[in-house]
Amino acid sequence: MVIPPLIEHKRDGHALAPEQWAELIAEYTADRVPDYQMAALLMAIVWRGLTPEELAALTDAMLASGDRLRFDGYSVPRVDKHSTGGVGDKVSLLLAPMVACCGVAVPMMSGRGLGHTGGTLDKLESIPGFRTGLSLREARAQVERLGCVMLGQTPEIAPADKRLYALRDVTATVESIPLISASIMSKKLAEGLNGLVLDVKTGSGAFLPDPARAIELARTMIGLGEARGCPTVALLTAMDRPLGRACGNALEMEESIEGLRGDGPADLMEVTYALGAEMLVLVGAAGDPAEARQRLEKAVASGEAIERFARMVEAQGGNPAVVEDPGILPQAQAVEVYRAPASGVIAAVEPRRIGRAIADLGGGRRTVEDTVDPSVGFVITVKPGDAVKAGEPIASIFARDAAGIATGEAALSEAIAIGRTGRLTPLITHRITARGVEILPERP
Amino acid sequence: MVIPPLIEHKRDGHALAPEQWAELIAEYTADRVPDYQMAALLMAIVWRGLTPEELAALTDAMLASGDRLRFDGYSVPRVDKHSTGGVGDKVSLLLAPMVACCGVAVPMMSGRGLGHTGGTLDKLESIPGFRTGLSLREARAQVERLGCVMLGQTPEIAPADKRLYALRDVTATVESIPLISASIMSKKLAEGLNGLVLDVKTGSGAFLPDPARAIELARTMIGLGEARGCPTVALLTAMDRPLGRACGNALEMEESIEGLRGDGPADLMEVTYALGAEMLVLVGAAGDPAEARQRLEKAVASGEAIERFARMVEAQGGNPAVVEDPGILPQAQAVEVYRAPASGVIAAVEPRRIGRAIADLGGGRRTVEDTVDPSVGFVITVKPGDAVKAGEPIASIFARDAAGIATGEAALSEAIAIGRTGRLTPLITHRITARGVEILPERP
Repeated sequence: MVIPPLIEHKRDGHALAPEQWAELIAEYTADRVPDYQMAALLMAIVWRGLTPEELAALTDAMLASGDRLRFDGYSVPRVDKHSTGGVGDKVSLLLAPMVACCGVAVPMMSGRGLGHTGGTLDKLESIPGFRTGLSLREARAQVERLGCVMLGQTPEIAPADKRLYALRDVTATVESIPLISASIMSKKLAEGLNGLVLDVKTGSGAFLPDPARAIELARTMIGLGEARGCPTVALLTAMDRPLGRACGNALEMEESIEGLRGDGPADLMEVTYALGAEMLVLVGAAGDPAEARQRLEKAVASGEAIERFARMVEAQGGNPAVVEDPGILPQAQAVEVYRAPASGVIAAVEPRRIGRAIADLGGGRRTVEDTVDPSVGFVITVKPGDAVKAGEPIASIFARDAAGIATGEAALSEAIAIGRTGRLTPLITHRITARGVEILPERP
Repeated sequence: MVIPPLIEHKRDGHALAPEQWAELIAEYTADRVPDYQMAALLMAIVWRGLTPEELAALTDAMLASGDRLRFDGYSVPRVDKHSTGGVGDKVSLLLAPMVACCGVAVPMMSGRGLGHTGGTLDKLESIPGFRTGLSLREARAQVERLGCVMLGQTPEIAPADKRLYALRDVTATVESIPLISASIMSKKLAEGLNGLVLDVKTGSGAFLPDPARAIELARTMIGLGEARGCPTVALLTAMDRPLGRACGNALEMEESIEGLRGDGPADLMEVTYALGAEMLVLVGAAGDPAEARQRLEKAVASGEAIERFARMVEAQGGNPAVVEDPGILPQAQAVEVYRAPASGVIAAVEPRRIGRAIADLGGGRRTVEDTVDPSVGFVITVKPGDAVKAGEPIASIFARDAAGIATGEAALSEAIAIGRTGRLTPLITHRITARGVEILPERP
């Protein structure tokens, strides 16, 4: 395949044919297209974008580069949730068992944290022994048995995406809505789903802070899903402050367990129920969001949700006693209370600063090869708009040692702004479907 | 050096600092920046362009990546001519000895043909024994002795350009005015010149067919040259038909020898004298273009020019008898007259089609590694606007065999259009200097 004319065509703003995308991705995956040509093409895509037909062809080609979860002969509807990523976002850990309790299967493939955002796999692996590296066969078997599984992207799933993502990461070609959409959807469509709910974050801590761009991303992914027989819905949720209180892998696992018992922070529960309700309605397991929410709340209140979670932990090699005794999770050696340095109103809790601080403490990744210390992080008990008094405890720092505590204090003093006024922005602002964008009413 | 933030900055339309360009090019030349990152950056440059400051810094960095011709202690003014390339363009072969006869030194570094355009080095090497691979030391010694030298880009000259050019060629990032300018000027500025004249081609057979883009390219290169102490002037010349009659390496050498004797085709002589006059005036060797032209014509009429050429051929290992007996040049095995298939007026002689046909006959390069058969090509004796009668000879085809003759006939029937009307566009349309663009009067 002669590549320069293809690059030239895209560079000049023209569309490539579906067969060209198919051949290009197949050749690239087979190592017959050098990275430098793909890098030039990726930058041309960032520049020129992709037509809907091109995006569909690229996504299909990436999907076709690998295998997929197959559920032939399995009649239970399957649904998943994908988040564009944020700080304190542990919703997946709650949703998989909760939705499974409502008779809908959740074959959930997640990623690791990178940059300032956390990753579901890292949070799961804070449970000693928990194994996320399942094969597709093991994943299907567990879904059939337990209704949910949480695993990493296996080597068989969209290998083209794996290579392309690594290349984009080092060539400044990540920030492209079609490329992001193709990357996410080629993996999600490999899960054999009957429905997909997207949690698209907006605000300063989000990957795409601008709501207009976040909506464009949501609509692009919805278009891809719907056209491939996977009904897709998105909620836009706030990431201008961390979600919940806990930020850091083991701390978030602990908060998730509280949430599965019904004791999670209000904002975390609200986002979890809203996304879960969409999941149930999408595959017809509930007639409307109110009924769906009732079923999810019942799964939590009855103890079924935490029980299902424990069974999943056990099935994947982890110690299920963690749900009774979070002390099993790795514990930070140094813990310190952080007090409000002044009286006033919380003006901001900046998620990027918090996320970077977790990495500084050893709990995040700078490159995909880094290992993480799951014990470190923060529990931040204030939100923008809260009134505080000087000296009042507003957070806890979990670190390896005294130096880490100092690092954490410095980070919190930058991340948590105290002023005269502050306001909590609405948590869930838009609902996006194939039919259009619905602006949601502000909740009290 | 961390590259992704630099790519990102350029991708987002911002300028990099001069020190960043310097370090980047140094690191790339030292093999510490992978080609895929450079490819993404090159595409971002095609997209966003470069500010004048960035372009200057990039050119300087490419120049600084290697050595240059040094003329310390040599007081003769030095000037060169650069053409953006075309079909039948053998002007360099005439100019170097002609200008040298007027007391101005010409240290001329040229390139090979690629794509549909011919290359001066290939034309020179059609003379048996002619050696273009001189060292910088040899080149300087020959300039001091003979006043002119014609050589290829040595490995010491702008190695960064060499690597970048090879990468651009396979990543569809050639067509960028700043990148073209930096590539040309980093090599020309390494020649230790006191002046540079640019022959910027326009029309269908030119690299940039659009005159507006050609003018932009000329102005960009002039800006770079002037700011670096090398006065630079450009002429825009027509490349909507081949220049002269001969197209093909040995055939063009033969026509050049005729030209050096004063017997060249009118259009070839006109472009040669116009560029040569600019060269002499630019370095103060003539007071005005009329005087300069007179001196050049005298060098030809007196036989000095052809004599100087013969001495240069001899000095570089070629057989100087070629100037008396062009039969020394490689001769095509098959020669055939091509006759006008109909009566009418020549509407077009398409240079790209001719150039591609030469490559088809074995006389051009598809990749830089290809070797060329110097004997093949065409002599086309008609120009747009000429009236022809059916059956009248209008060209000759020079090929390896009967199959080549058939290929050549097919090409000529496509390239030479005969219609009811046709018009020869003006040969030299614009003169561009640091002061601005001058539209030249149409010559009769």
